[in-house]
Amino acid sequence: MGLIVQKFGGSSVADADKIRNVARIITETYRRGHNVVAVLSAQGDTTDDLIAKAKEINPKASRREMDMLLSTGEQISCSLCAMAIEAMGYPVVSLTGWQAGFKTDSSYSSARIKTVQTERLITELDKRCIVIVTGFQGINKYDDITTLGRGGSDTSAVALAAILHADLCQIYTDVDGIYTADPRSVTGARKLEEITYDEMLELASLGAQVLHNRSVEMAKRYNVNLEVLSSFTGKPGTKVKEVVKVVEKSHVSGVAKDKNVARVAVVGVADEPGIAFKIFSLLAKHSINVDLILQSIGRNNTKDISFTISRKDMEATKALLEERKDYIHFERVDVSDDIAKVSIVGAGMINNPGVAAQMFEALYSANINIHMISTSEIKVSVLVDDDDANRAVQAIHDKFYSEFGNRG
Amino acid sequence: MGLIVQKFGGSSVADADKIRNVARIITETYRRGHNVVAVLSAQGDTTDDLIAKAKEINPKASRREMDMLLSTGEQISCSLCAMAIEAMGYPVVSLTGWQAGFKTDSSYSSARIKTVQTERLITELDKRCIVIVTGFQGINKYDDITTLGRGGSDTSAVALAAILHADLCQIYTDVDGIYTADPRSVTGARKLEEITYDEMLELASLGAQVLHNRSVEMAKRYNVNLEVLSSFTGKPGTKVKEVVKVVEKSHVSGVAKDKNVARVAVVGVADEPGIAFKIFSLLAKHSINVDLILQSIGRNNTKDISFTISRKDMEATKALLEERKDYIHFERVDVSDDIAKVSIVGAGMINNPGVAAQMFEALYSANINIHMISTSEIKVSVLVDDDDANRAVQAIHDKFYSEFGNRG
Repeated sequence: MGLIVQKFGGSSVADADKIRNVARIITETYRRGHNVVAVLSAQGDTTDDLIAKAKEINPKASRREMDMLLSTGEQISCSLCAMAIEAMGYPVVSLTGWQAGFKTDSSYSSARIKTVQTERLITELDKRCIVIVTGFQGINKYDDITTLGRGGSDTSAVALAAILHADLCQIYTDVDGIYTADPRSVTGARKLEEITYDEMLELASLGAQVLHNRSVEMAKRYNVNLEVLSSFTGKPGTKVKEVVKVVEKSHVSGVAKDKNVARVAVVGVADEPGIAFKIFSLLAKHSINVDLILQSIGRNNTKDISFTISRKDMEATKALLEERKDYIHFERVDVSDDIAKVSIVGAGMINNPGVAAQMFEALYSANINIHMISTSEIKVSVLVDDDDANRAVQAIHDKFYSEFGNRG
Repeated sequence: MGLIVQKFGGSSVADADKIRNVARIITETYRRGHNVVAVLSAQGDTTDDLIAKAKEINPKASRREMDMLLSTGEQISCSLCAMAIEAMGYPVVSLTGWQAGFKTDSSYSSARIKTVQTERLITELDKRCIVIVTGFQGINKYDDITTLGRGGSDTSAVALAAILHADLCQIYTDVDGIYTADPRSVTGARKLEEITYDEMLELASLGAQVLHNRSVEMAKRYNVNLEVLSSFTGKPGTKVKEVVKVVEKSHVSGVAKDKNVARVAVVGVADEPGIAFKIFSLLAKHSINVDLILQSIGRNNTKDISFTISRKDMEATKALLEERKDYIHFERVDVSDDIAKVSIVGAGMINNPGVAAQMFEALYSANINIHMISTSEIKVSVLVDDDDANRAVQAIHDKFYSEFGNRG
């Protein structure tokens, strides 16, 4: 007998039938002898409906009152789910964030969990009671309700799994696992059986929006065994863990594209210390997040610094740099947003330098031009023309999954 | 500067415009220099919608989970109202039942307030912050959410007014005060300026459903000045207090009818001690509430005992009595439900024995037969035929309010 934390997203609890389905998953796990803590999001569109109600009254409502409002969504889904489990004849109790002991900092709408005081949870589990916990929320030191922001319920679930030393944390969602590429756009995309935390982190940041990075980071830090699976199919999903089984044929776990990218090239800066500091501290001061950074080799005592940012920040970045031209010293700033980032991720890559070459070969064969390259231990990213992005992902996916086979 | 507790019912906060209206009432009170604690019910049909959601999933859901579900309704209306007040530029904070310190017993769905721990409330009021509190709810000793049952938000407001020693507790509703009779059915019904707690209690139990008895009883016990008024008209309402101004012309504050009445006559019981005990302890054991009780003068060593109950209990009462006929000893049981109770209420009645006679005169003039009479210090009730009830109320109202004028 073990302890399993199960998290169900908004689409999994959207109506009465779906709540009954979630209740069945929970009680089947319980009947197999496990203790179960289930963390639920708000039903389907509840959060959006509540936000619309608030906007009608005050478009600039304080985040404190927004959190007070939005936290009701999970309280509704959790009590309804508990009722469904009662109807099946199992012992169950639903708990709000504060009842379950979630203590956060005071950053309303994007609070961070400081600790979970688990006395109540443990008391209920010791009675062999199924516990349903509201995701996404806690209270701060003033006893005010806070919400955790995007991906909050995943984070709630992983935090509970970590602090309760759960054997497994299952994230139920509307997809049935992590794929080698987006199955909606890439032919032959396959579900992975396992993936490492680091690969998952790289994939999440590349736009594979299955798990929020905060929850994966926390899972990695506390070594929580994660599984991503569908609440509708009943099939095994993808396990996310520290080390995955030995990979026979491929060192690439996934191919992802991110279209929310703009490139900025600062051309002709002096080849002297401090330039990168000047540019990037300026951007940081204005909360502009920089992703890839490349610095060209100098020529005639000048060099070029290129980097990528979100498309929404492109104009502001150009204006900021030109405003400080005399301080930074450069020839000109070129910007472009008709580009996309395509990346391969795989923990095995570090020991296989040929992987990057194979990616480039795939792009060359497909006649796709590469504007920028960046590599890390478990990732290779390239910038390509926006129009080439889908073809690029398919070509790379074909390369690794037809020549080397599926790792999953 | 004083402290005013204002309570707004579900119809007063039903949509965005009505919430803004409530926010205006609160902030106008605040601008006059008062501290304001506002207690809100859930919006319009929210509670019914939530109950429907629950019924779809589990018609026999536990009351513990129902309370968890239903308590979200007030949390939503309170946070929205706080946002409306924020938009008007005033300092405001919304608090749930547990945040406001409401501690109750564990009778889920009909909990009673044990105490209100007011530290947080006082801290906010000391900062000259408007406080919006969820009505109808608290937590028990297990930190589980409880609701107070019918009239719960009125009770929450009066409890706060009592414990905070508020100068006034205003109950905003969709009627603009307490009337001498139901203005929807009685011509010439007039709004009262003032009424005593005891009169209000008698009127509430007679079916004038403006204030729930629990809240009036609590107001009487802690001497809380109540005012019932409309959130829509902006006019003064009716004050409910211990002693009202000297009444010049009438000793009757209201006329009410109650159609949910059945009469039971136990005919031919022995004229000996213990009979009343036998009958009414039997009914009490089966949770049947008895209202009026009359015992006729004995004849041939027998007497008759008549009493009134709710219509729904009539058949069960008859069956119960007949089952125990050998134990109680009586000739027969007659029951009837085509009757209604009509009552006059007035604190001045006790010193004016002529009041009852005037009531009987009014009924005689209208050719209405009286089946049963019961009097208390501040009330005279008669049973009449159901079909005569409306005419009876009008005749009595005409008698007191055209001959003696309006007390209000």
